Amino acid sequence: MVNYPAGMLRSKKITPRQPKAIMFGKRGMDFEAEINATNAYYLAHGLAVIHKKPTPVQIVKVDYPQRSRAKITEAYFRQASTTDYSGVYQGHYIDFEAKETQNKTSFPLKNFHAHQILHMENVVEQNGIAFVLLHFTVLSRTFLLKATDLIPFYKEKQGQKSIPIAFIEDKGYEISKNKLPSIPYLDCIHKLLGGNSHFKSKTQ
Amino acid sequence: MVNYPAGMLRSKKITPRQPKAIMFGKRGMDFEAEINATNAYYLAHGLAVIHKKPTPVQIVKVDYPQRSRAKITEAYFRQASTTDYSGVYQGHYIDFEAKETQNKTSFPLKNFHAHQILHMENVVEQNGIAFVLLHFTVLSRTFLLKATDLIPFYKEKQGQKSIPIAFIEDKGYEISKNKLPSIPYLDCIHKLLGGNSHFKSKTQ
Repeated sequence: MVNYPAGMLRSKKITPRQPKAIMFGKRGMDFEAEINATNAYYLAHGLAVIHKKPTPVQIVKVDYPQRSRAKITEAYFRQASTTDYSGVYQGHYIDFEAKETQNKTSFPLKNFHAHQILHMENVVEQNGIAFVLLHFTVLSRTFLLKATDLIPFYKEKQGQKSIPIAFIEDKGYEISKNKLPSIPYLDCIHKLLGGNSHFKSKTQ
Repeated sequence: MVNYPAGMLRSKKITPRQPKAIMFGKRGMDFEAEINATNAYYLAHGLAVIHKKPTPVQIVKVDYPQRSRAKITEAYFRQASTTDYSGVYQGHYIDFEAKETQNKTSFPLKNFHAHQILHMENVVEQNGIAFVLLHFTVLSRTFLLKATDLIPFYKEKQGQKSIPIAFIEDKGYEISKNKLPSIPYLDCIHKLLGGNSHFKSKTQ
């Protein structure tokens, strides 16, 4: 799956011709914007340094109409080889992917690529903190699921099935939506690391 | 400075029109390729998970000639807001920028942007490991300089001057070039973290 960059399809100069592409680009935009705003909040308050990686693009042709600015005239979206977000929180390496679904009862695993799963495995082996943020759009519920819980499930189902919401409710941590930061996932990480937190899990 | 992606100018379809742009793109390609190979070695051997971030591109126009592949027809290089490399080494967050110079006696600070310096400061505040890899092309010497040593120097000179090589020799760690991995900077990090290492510093 290609992740279109935030704001890209908001540009007036963008002229998508296929409805599929428009929907594809729009999907997840709000959730992504909220995560970006959360990261901006964390950065501004000195709580963490977590950035979204740039969208990987394969550049094929570049023109130089002016000395000052090179213009890319042919390029293609590449599949990301890692997750979208990474950074540092109190010395700990943080690595995650954020996805959302319109489903109400399960989360489709096809949202994750095999190489992203492999990347998360590698991060876990290096004692990094890897997880996914799963957003159920219709339900307005967001969960943090540790990579160590996602990976075995993914492997068992060969990435072809969906994770039942019961599994996510059981293994994951629900993130209560805040005003600011909007998606306070660090509360959950703080708790996982053994610290005190105002994170409130709805799982029992 | 815009960092052109590795391999970009090797494409046959690339037709750079300005010599300046060609030189600019070529500069650092070998050093960058060596770092990428080093990271691939570390990854393959389970020693660390460190990736180069994709080149940030501002996408303006996208065509959809086929359902299968969107074609970007207008885009521009954006300035990176962070450093180029980040990842995890034994739980520690690693963050660095790699630059090279043709100079023999000093390293121009204009190679670094103010926001990259700010980013490194933020990383250091979060107890991440931030540094720069400085390569003197003509001298064939490569140094690791901790961000905590670079930042005060950068601020003092307002980013307008060059770091004398004596300062780098004094404060930094020279990296002996290996066959594989080519630029074993992790040896240095290992040493900085207090572990044993075969890293050999030429500084006294």
